[in-house]
Amino acid sequence: MPSYTAPTKDIQYVLHDVLNISNSEVPGYADLDREFTEAILDAAGQLASEVIAPLNTVGDTEGCTFENGVITTPTGFKAAFEQVKEGGWPGLDLPEEYGGQGLPYLISTAVGELFSGANQAFTMYQGLTHGAASAILVHGTEDQKATYLPKMTSCDWTGTMNLTEPHCGTDLGLMRTKAEPQDDGSYKISGQKIFISAGDHDMSENVIHLVLGKIVGGPEGIKGVSLFIVPKFLVNEDGSLGARNGVSVGSIEEKMGIHGNSTCVMNYDEATGYLLGDMHKGMRAMFTMMNEARLGVGMQGLAQAEAAYQNAVIYAKDRLQGRAVTGAENPEGPADPLIVHPDIRRNLMDQKSFIEGARAFMLWGAQLIDAGHKGGDTAAEGLVSLMTPVLKGFLTDKGYEATVNAQQVYGGHGYIEEWGMSQFTRDARIAMIYEGANGVQALDLVGRKLAQDGGKHVMAFFDMVKTFCKENGDGDMAEFVDPLKAASKDLQGAGMYFMQNGMKNPNAALSGSYDFMHLFGYVCLGLMWGRMAKTSLTALANGTDDPEFHKNKLITARYYMARSLPMTGTLLKRIESGADPVMALAAEAF
Amino acid sequence: MPSYTAPTKDIQYVLHDVLNISNSEVPGYADLDREFTEAILDAAGQLASEVIAPLNTVGDTEGCTFENGVITTPTGFKAAFEQVKEGGWPGLDLPEEYGGQGLPYLISTAVGELFSGANQAFTMYQGLTHGAASAILVHGTEDQKATYLPKMTSCDWTGTMNLTEPHCGTDLGLMRTKAEPQDDGSYKISGQKIFISAGDHDMSENVIHLVLGKIVGGPEGIKGVSLFIVPKFLVNEDGSLGARNGVSVGSIEEKMGIHGNSTCVMNYDEATGYLLGDMHKGMRAMFTMMNEARLGVGMQGLAQAEAAYQNAVIYAKDRLQGRAVTGAENPEGPADPLIVHPDIRRNLMDQKSFIEGARAFMLWGAQLIDAGHKGGDTAAEGLVSLMTPVLKGFLTDKGYEATVNAQQVYGGHGYIEEWGMSQFTRDARIAMIYEGANGVQALDLVGRKLAQDGGKHVMAFFDMVKTFCKENGDGDMAEFVDPLKAASKDLQGAGMYFMQNGMKNPNAALSGSYDFMHLFGYVCLGLMWGRMAKTSLTALANGTDDPEFHKNKLITARYYMARSLPMTGTLLKRIESGADPVMALAAEAF
Repeated sequence: MPSYTAPTKDIQYVLHDVLNISNSEVPGYADLDREFTEAILDAAGQLASEVIAPLNTVGDTEGCTFENGVITTPTGFKAAFEQVKEGGWPGLDLPEEYGGQGLPYLISTAVGELFSGANQAFTMYQGLTHGAASAILVHGTEDQKATYLPKMTSCDWTGTMNLTEPHCGTDLGLMRTKAEPQDDGSYKISGQKIFISAGDHDMSENVIHLVLGKIVGGPEGIKGVSLFIVPKFLVNEDGSLGARNGVSVGSIEEKMGIHGNSTCVMNYDEATGYLLGDMHKGMRAMFTMMNEARLGVGMQGLAQAEAAYQNAVIYAKDRLQGRAVTGAENPEGPADPLIVHPDIRRNLMDQKSFIEGARAFMLWGAQLIDAGHKGGDTAAEGLVSLMTPVLKGFLTDKGYEATVNAQQVYGGHGYIEEWGMSQFTRDARIAMIYEGANGVQALDLVGRKLAQDGGKHVMAFFDMVKTFCKENGDGDMAEFVDPLKAASKDLQGAGMYFMQNGMKNPNAALSGSYDFMHLFGYVCLGLMWGRMAKTSLTALANGTDDPEFHKNKLITARYYMARSLPMTGTLLKRIESGADPVMALAAEAF
Repeated sequence: MPSYTAPTKDIQYVLHDVLNISNSEVPGYADLDREFTEAILDAAGQLASEVIAPLNTVGDTEGCTFENGVITTPTGFKAAFEQVKEGGWPGLDLPEEYGGQGLPYLISTAVGELFSGANQAFTMYQGLTHGAASAILVHGTEDQKATYLPKMTSCDWTGTMNLTEPHCGTDLGLMRTKAEPQDDGSYKISGQKIFISAGDHDMSENVIHLVLGKIVGGPEGIKGVSLFIVPKFLVNEDGSLGARNGVSVGSIEEKMGIHGNSTCVMNYDEATGYLLGDMHKGMRAMFTMMNEARLGVGMQGLAQAEAAYQNAVIYAKDRLQGRAVTGAENPEGPADPLIVHPDIRRNLMDQKSFIEGARAFMLWGAQLIDAGHKGGDTAAEGLVSLMTPVLKGFLTDKGYEATVNAQQVYGGHGYIEEWGMSQFTRDARIAMIYEGANGVQALDLVGRKLAQDGGKHVMAFFDMVKTFCKENGDGDMAEFVDPLKAASKDLQGAGMYFMQNGMKNPNAALSGSYDFMHLFGYVCLGLMWGRMAKTSLTALANGTDDPEFHKNKLITARYYMARSLPMTGTLLKRIESGADPVMALAAEAF
């Protein structure tokens, strides 16, 4: 069975050495000193590796069962969920007035990586609850907040997000779920929703569904969509649970992975719902926390990659097979460990350099979100809004790729479920799809975010990279900055191509949108590796007491610069080939 | 449920328009005129789409069961297997004297794609039998051939290949299976083998295991390995089945995919075995048909990609979601089909241009194998031997990637088992692992094949590409040849880098081996697209009666040249970064 060890040291490095968070001006960050975050990460890490991770295989093997209208989660989930609740983890960054800890989003992101890496399917129950609670927090009336948030903060009640219907996912304007206004101000909700993660289960007293639907008689299409709170059990005035609402599980889906999470078809049959936020502004309400939600999914890509990588490393050091081409390294043994072989190292270094770069990118993104929300820093908010599709799309694509590579280290054993490597890839696969499929992320990036606010966020990003390169281009940093400069030039070249061609022909830009999302991602991780190289060079120059750690950071930075970053050249060429290759074939000729 | 349509027209195009096989000098090819191959492909295609493909989901869902020592294949497999046998398909390219059809390997490869695309797990039962029969054909005594080949040619008896043991896969020198010589010339085989595809099942009267083991007292390591025939039921003098042999199934493996195939742990307990080929030359005997076997696995990568692509196209044309950015294309409907969106097309064109290029590459490889085996063309044999790791490694890597992309077209529906898209990826995943994991293919290519026969095969390959470019670099062909030239230059640059650095430091070459395998693959597909472009330009100039088909080939060729081939630049940069980035990190720092 695979194991999981919390990468606490690396997270601490990013938080304190690279991002220097406790010196940041973001409200609440001053308290985040090294000891404080270490205590949190250690406690979360212990729960993750000792309680949550051992249930990962169980969850995959047993899955959820749906019998007589009741969903049962896999053995051990309920007890573990109680432990998570007791530790107060679900409310880590929710307001203290509702029972949360009021910590920054940054900290819940760091902790989220540990829980997701240990067991994605399990962690989604609290993740969805957090998303629903966040929407109520922003858009709810005082009454709604008082009714739902304390119970959701503790995860006594869990939450869901209901968007997709059988015939529409991305294009929610097509939705058919109806809401009929009632005299008492509530609505009767009817319709069917599919792919509802954590839709129902046996770990909470109540399930609070956030449901998108159209108020009868409202505008057509997406402009007529509103968001409703639909509790599984209606809540009495005194907060106790009342009658069962008209919402039921139709079935649970058989999926490729995340078997431990109950993905439901939900049927609403004149269920009582309460409008959340403004009428016909449901999309806005649902997507208020979009940056966080999408960064959270990007985090899942990284988290699965980390978990898979750890196990690939264990196997590569343990499994004896063949001899090093430069001479036996384990001459007393029957063969050398796999890790002596260059191609195994190439594979592991690909994973490692992605993971550590992605972690820095993700935590930086979380810091920007805090700076925007808590600190009112509109530049930070604009920047993270620009990078959100990259955080989601690139980290989940490359995270999935990393899990496939980790599986490959095991050879045939990677294909057998017994070893658990297949589960990492099957679980990681969903993150490329949900919360906006990655093609939609690319469309969001190129079709919307680039031009947002007159393009000022992307210009700010370019300036930031340019400034970094200018200030650090000499001496020991040159070997890291030169490749970053080249990659950044490719990214700017792509932006230029879009500017010059996208207006005349939108397809010229959109044909290269996916390449651009990746190109952006490579540059972001390149910038992170540049910052980490600078951090570690400085630490070494200042006589750190852990020189090996920092030297290894430099080695990994060099790998990323030499072997990953050159991808930007190919991506630029693809982008500059424009619309014709993509659009020329008639639909019927496919 | 997914559907499957045999891509007969495209195969015919490659066989006749591109490769012009009936004018080839390879023995047996003169009979392969267009009508003849079409009749075969039509018959095989009908069986594939109507009988074999509908069992693909069944096989995945039910899997094989192992109860009371008996393995039961999924519902319908047995009846379908009878139909395959009745059609004489398993013996298509086996000798007529044993009941086969004596057709070229090329034809069985073309047919193999159809069967594998329809149902990989099912088709493996005959595939493994074919592999075992081929080894007996080359290395068996007349007696062994007479005893086993007629029954294996018909698939009344199926075959297996037993290499892997729990502690060794790639490094077979470590194997522990023992063979004790008996007075009658037979051996007693004892040991455990794992990952034995089609190891036992209910579709054949007997299972003929080819087992690698060490004769007691023989040389250490790989030089002491011999190959044995170990039938499940011993065969009497008159050919009837005798006593049950000492071989049994320990368990069947729970796998990520190919559930319809029984992957067994096989226990040999003093089982009677018969030496096949020379004593201590077991590896050679097992790997005699290696080029075919590896090309066959490359074919599986392509076949799964084709099947997944077909279904992705159906969905992309059917599913209405969003509007074309250039204006509604289905204004009467609620939304436009997915296929109007540039990123969906980019995804589908990636798949299509890979599949068609890969098919040409594969069939060309099969032609070279026939030219070597049947025609004694040593240059052809050397060339295909060089390209075999590319055919296996590149086609399975990119084939898998294509299935993941096809799944992505379905959004959330791609993650639900109901739609079948997940199965394509789960089944395709194994081809990157078995028959030599792709990292081992890369090692074979760079560590062995490049330098084979003084490097003459790789020089011949370079010459061939150069000649093609020189002869076709002008006029309408320039747009196709220019990118091919650039890619070929990158490949030669990589070869040069290995020559200049690999002798001093083998790690400098092996660190880039995987990149080189892909670089080689891109150039091979580029060459194929160059040839197809030339073929279709000529057909159009000559007034073909199917101009649309050829114009679409040119469009797809342009896509490949513009958007896939530029990858060679990045791969060369990775290779030229050498050993340091890959080897610098101490093993304990991973």
